[in-house]
Amino acid sequence: MKKIISIAAVMLLGLSANAQQAIFGKPGIKSPEINSDGTVTFRYSNPKAITVQVTGEFLPITKMDTPFGKYDAPGTADLKQDKTGIWEYTTTEPVKGGFYNYYFIVNGQKTLDLNNVFVNRDVSSLTNILLIGGGKADLYKIQEVPHGTVSRLWYHSKTAGFDRRITVYTPAGYETSKRTKYPVLYLLHGIGGDEEAWITQGRASQIMDNLIAQGKAKAMIVVMTNGNIAEEAAPNENATGYCVPTMQLPKTMEGTFEESFPEIVKFIESTYRTIPQKKARAIAGLSMGGFHSLYISANYPDMFNYVGLFSAAVGVSDTSVSPIYQNIDDKLRIQFEKKPALYWIGIGSADFLYASNKEFRTKLDANSYPYKYMETDGGHIWRNWRTYLATFVPLLFR
Amino acid sequence: MKKIISIAAVMLLGLSANAQQAIFGKPGIKSPEINSDGTVTFRYSNPKAITVQVTGEFLPITKMDTPFGKYDAPGTADLKQDKTGIWEYTTTEPVKGGFYNYYFIVNGQKTLDLNNVFVNRDVSSLTNILLIGGGKADLYKIQEVPHGTVSRLWYHSKTAGFDRRITVYTPAGYETSKRTKYPVLYLLHGIGGDEEAWITQGRASQIMDNLIAQGKAKAMIVVMTNGNIAEEAAPNENATGYCVPTMQLPKTMEGTFEESFPEIVKFIESTYRTIPQKKARAIAGLSMGGFHSLYISANYPDMFNYVGLFSAAVGVSDTSVSPIYQNIDDKLRIQFEKKPALYWIGIGSADFLYASNKEFRTKLDANSYPYKYMETDGGHIWRNWRTYLATFVPLLFR
Repeated sequence: MKKIISIAAVMLLGLSANAQQAIFGKPGIKSPEINSDGTVTFRYSNPKAITVQVTGEFLPITKMDTPFGKYDAPGTADLKQDKTGIWEYTTTEPVKGGFYNYYFIVNGQKTLDLNNVFVNRDVSSLTNILLIGGGKADLYKIQEVPHGTVSRLWYHSKTAGFDRRITVYTPAGYETSKRTKYPVLYLLHGIGGDEEAWITQGRASQIMDNLIAQGKAKAMIVVMTNGNIAEEAAPNENATGYCVPTMQLPKTMEGTFEESFPEIVKFIESTYRTIPQKKARAIAGLSMGGFHSLYISANYPDMFNYVGLFSAAVGVSDTSVSPIYQNIDDKLRIQFEKKPALYWIGIGSADFLYASNKEFRTKLDANSYPYKYMETDGGHIWRNWRTYLATFVPLLFR
Repeated sequence: MKKIISIAAVMLLGLSANAQQAIFGKPGIKSPEINSDGTVTFRYSNPKAITVQVTGEFLPITKMDTPFGKYDAPGTADLKQDKTGIWEYTTTEPVKGGFYNYYFIVNGQKTLDLNNVFVNRDVSSLTNILLIGGGKADLYKIQEVPHGTVSRLWYHSKTAGFDRRITVYTPAGYETSKRTKYPVLYLLHGIGGDEEAWITQGRASQIMDNLIAQGKAKAMIVVMTNGNIAEEAAPNENATGYCVPTMQLPKTMEGTFEESFPEIVKFIESTYRTIPQKKARAIAGLSMGGFHSLYISANYPDMFNYVGLFSAAVGVSDTSVSPIYQNIDDKLRIQFEKKPALYWIGIGSADFLYASNKEFRTKLDANSYPYKYMETDGGHIWRNWRTYLATFVPLLFR
């Protein structure tokens, strides 16, 4: 046993030089630390720093000035330096259950908490993650339940002219139940997102695992596409190499992706054991993905029986760029004549798209098109989209 | 069109507040920038910084003092501040093709280049990634070739008593060729690693895609296990929640993982279309994974026809902790009597395990056990392990 221990010490030398520096070069501080009373302590080691702050969605919201007006931003709190040079801040209240993004600001400059290796990218921004269980957040945690499989595969897009990456969740039991066929939810991201967004920021695989294990959702396949048709795959997952993710990709919201959607459905249904019928297909998306879901389901009224619009970018289509966006009132009439099993709309009361969603609902109401509606507080944020997914999914394929 | 553009601007408001801050709060600097002459420029915006350095494996190696002696560390270079407050450094030479880890040091403190969202974790250390094509590194790039599927799934380990996560690469065509059966390479990580290591730092899926597309490797399935039997999954992919990844996990290198290996093979062969025969099974691993490969293949001599030891931790077993490690000379004799198709050893001349590997080769030589040997420069580093994988894989299943 002694031999193994000494070897383990020697094997530290066997790390890549970077990993070694991390071990030899830093004190072993813990950050974040979830305390027994539910508060959270953040620590940062930098004796030379002048100011250190933490900013995250668990701190009270502040109003931020932007070129487009005031906007809710996560609050900040100051870390204080102790005698040993370690900076520290403990929240004044227990942190409520949630999946939070946060980072440090050192001398006014954004930096990550490098003691926490749990990091997500949202568009072009990296942040640390803090996941606190309790309440709805228990759905976002990895629990001791059967887990589905998450696969990244590539389909050939005739529309795009190249192979494109797609993320697919298959529920626990898919591999062992060799004959069972499953319904499919197509789950679309927002502008700036890609086929990774619902997995990283959306916690889709955890939400599905937990809802299915609790018997609250049917076992289903979830297909997370990349809605930027000009793009092969998420940043650093495609052949262009190093890039800065941007919001403004070509061919976005000009009809091509929506028009190409049947090739995605065809690929999924020839690759996985699906029930290839309208009754077993759902489509939902957030923001631009809600816009996509609206137009795809209206243009292909025999394809989807369940539609979910999460903070959807309704009312922004340009009819001059694609026939996909034309005659939407006629298309909706035909879609609703076919009586979809569920048309679901969710929006936050502080969302900048609240008014346009209200206008859209007024149109549905005027035509007596039935839909379910959920209004939450907060704005155009992932917290809401996780809530909408967890609310929408139990209604599917009943 | 105008409408869409204005909407896109409005939709910036629709980002999570963190992503917004990234867009509104930072100048649009590019870092890293690969220049047309092959040099690379790094930039960092922090007017208040006193010193800014970049450290990475593309800079000349320096000797670093550690508790265990001197060790090769990546070099560092100083960034200089320009009039606008942006810090900048351009390499003096073109950077050779390679997959490099790097980060910044600001006022002596490690920080990431937050303009580069390409970040990897190695054990408990986060670093930025710089991937420069050319030479061997072209194998590490995502190329315009057919891509395999990478799946994360969970198998039930009777040995551990819980479900465990496993990463599986299936080659391009697996989904469409509904009947083809494939050989399998089991690919094991080192101490401190997990089922993600070969994908993130090892570039295994890119290496496989490219070698298969070039006709240099057979289409095969690659199974990347988690060799820490006490662990369900990689950090933040398991139910323990937030944790600091450590090197020293319980039940590591005490025989349990090696003993449990048949349950992994059984799971893979009942889940995927494999050729369930010795002739179609290979096992290889780096460092601790090489140690595992040695003992698993010797204890189950009818299981693997191909064995790869990459910088393997040979000669460190403690025979008192498990029968797996006992009578290894007898086990090797039986293994070699059965004439494995390939026994492959790779090591760097500067590796701290060089001497123990030499001792092991001397034993193989003394017994006239045939093996192939590759010696590279450098130490116990991922650069070597990517090279060994790319060299080993073309020799399999011929």
